[in-house]
Amino acid sequence: MMVFLNNRILPLEEANISPFNRGFLFADGVYESIRTYNKKLFRYKDHLDRLKKSIKEIRIDFKEFDSLENIIYDLIKKNSIEGEALVYLQITRGSAIPRTHSFPKEKISPTLFISVKEFAEDNAEQSRGVKVIFQEDIRWLRCDIKSTSLLPVVLASQKATEENAVEAILVRDGLITEGTHTNFFAVKNETVFTAPKSRLILEGITRKVVLEFCEKFKIECCEEFINKDDLKSFDEFFITSTTKEITPVTSIDYWTINQGEPGKITKSLQAVFKKITEDY
Amino acid sequence: MMVFLNNRILPLEEANISPFNRGFLFADGVYESIRTYNKKLFRYKDHLDRLKKSIKEIRIDFKEFDSLENIIYDLIKKNSIEGEALVYLQITRGSAIPRTHSFPKEKISPTLFISVKEFAEDNAEQSRGVKVIFQEDIRWLRCDIKSTSLLPVVLASQKATEENAVEAILVRDGLITEGTHTNFFAVKNETVFTAPKSRLILEGITRKVVLEFCEKFKIECCEEFINKDDLKSFDEFFITSTTKEITPVTSIDYWTINQGEPGKITKSLQAVFKKITEDY
Repeated sequence: MMVFLNNRILPLEEANISPFNRGFLFADGVYESIRTYNKKLFRYKDHLDRLKKSIKEIRIDFKEFDSLENIIYDLIKKNSIEGEALVYLQITRGSAIPRTHSFPKEKISPTLFISVKEFAEDNAEQSRGVKVIFQEDIRWLRCDIKSTSLLPVVLASQKATEENAVEAILVRDGLITEGTHTNFFAVKNETVFTAPKSRLILEGITRKVVLEFCEKFKIECCEEFINKDDLKSFDEFFITSTTKEITPVTSIDYWTINQGEPGKITKSLQAVFKKITEDY
Repeated sequence: MMVFLNNRILPLEEANISPFNRGFLFADGVYESIRTYNKKLFRYKDHLDRLKKSIKEIRIDFKEFDSLENIIYDLIKKNSIEGEALVYLQITRGSAIPRTHSFPKEKISPTLFISVKEFAEDNAEQSRGVKVIFQEDIRWLRCDIKSTSLLPVVLASQKATEENAVEAILVRDGLITEGTHTNFFAVKNETVFTAPKSRLILEGITRKVVLEFCEKFKIECCEEFINKDDLKSFDEFFITSTTKEITPVTSIDYWTINQGEPGKITKSLQAVFKKITEDY
């Protein structure tokens, strides 16, 4: 596997991070996951804008945004990826000694790490739907920043895996925020609901695409928190993300929704999504 | 500098972490900082117990606790540290490909990283006292686990540095929890107050030592959250940590406490602490 680290493409075995990298010591970094359709990076500008926002919020002095797109395409090529690619990109504040929580006093270079892998969609998940579980949202209060401070996400995801679910949906003070790596949607009387943009959720790119669809196709849409206790008043549910696209949720904890049948609005949104990505 | 990484002591330049280390990707790890007095690791058992607790809570499969103490002393020796040493020890879940939030399916080896440095106390801080600032506590809800998910701590510490303060004291819903790397204490009518053990604070070793002192010397002690709004009803303040020991707080934001004079109880606790560490 070839990866990009600190200004060059090199074999993974030669890609070395110092233990004093602040990404390793403090999770002092941010990341993006981007995928291709027809070998083109999907909604690249949206991902780039979000990356810039994350970088700005945590004040990492990284400026080489213009070169990223070419590096990514080059790395995909160097890895001889035949089909579609999933790109992982991480930027940390860099390495510094001594270890101090505050930013290093001397100027240091941020660390840029990029890896790519072949990506195959899970068509079964998308057509049959998936099981999710609820977990308490114990994450920090700046979930709008796509940071690598992901330990709570690791623990909730692992819980989901152990319960044969594909995602843990997080609940804070009784309100549904989002999944560990997806946004959560519910539909009631043909109106689509999802948590509002705030510091409690990440503004997902696929979430944004779905909201655009709703506007274009005159589907009513409410950016409002859903109370976990009101869940049974909704007709259908789905999750969205770069890798999950629009995936129906057919089971939540021990509740099977609609006899396990994906919902009507969910399926129509999936169809539109399929169309625009096929033509991308 | 010699460090310990993956079963051996080696020069820092040769100590390489894979970018796929889960410590780097997810902050999927925990750590401890320990210092020596008279070249002996202070309250080593307490640090070890806390490390074991952290490891257990995040379910890292690490068992080689018995060998740690010898490794640390060996590393101090290999670094030819003349005076006292400050030890940093980090354990992550290890490296795995592909990147998945859930624990890797195959068994992987945890990563153990240890570094040491010469440690010099800041006597001026301890005798004159320090300035702290308040910051909103936006950390996750398992602050009792000493995890490397430290980005909120980095941001709050940086804010403190920029305001010429040595620490940011964190406030959640109006209640004072702790500092970014210290516990916070306040004294009123000779009674010592500090936040109770809970998921909102780390149980500091020096905090524990102070509570032991209170019991031994019959100083009244209340483990209760202090409301930020009640702050002016207190007589004196101090912070505790492995590196700060017991440090008087003489200024909070723009408020100078007692004309900048460390408090009476604070000074008596400092004296006891000095005695036990001198004799350690």
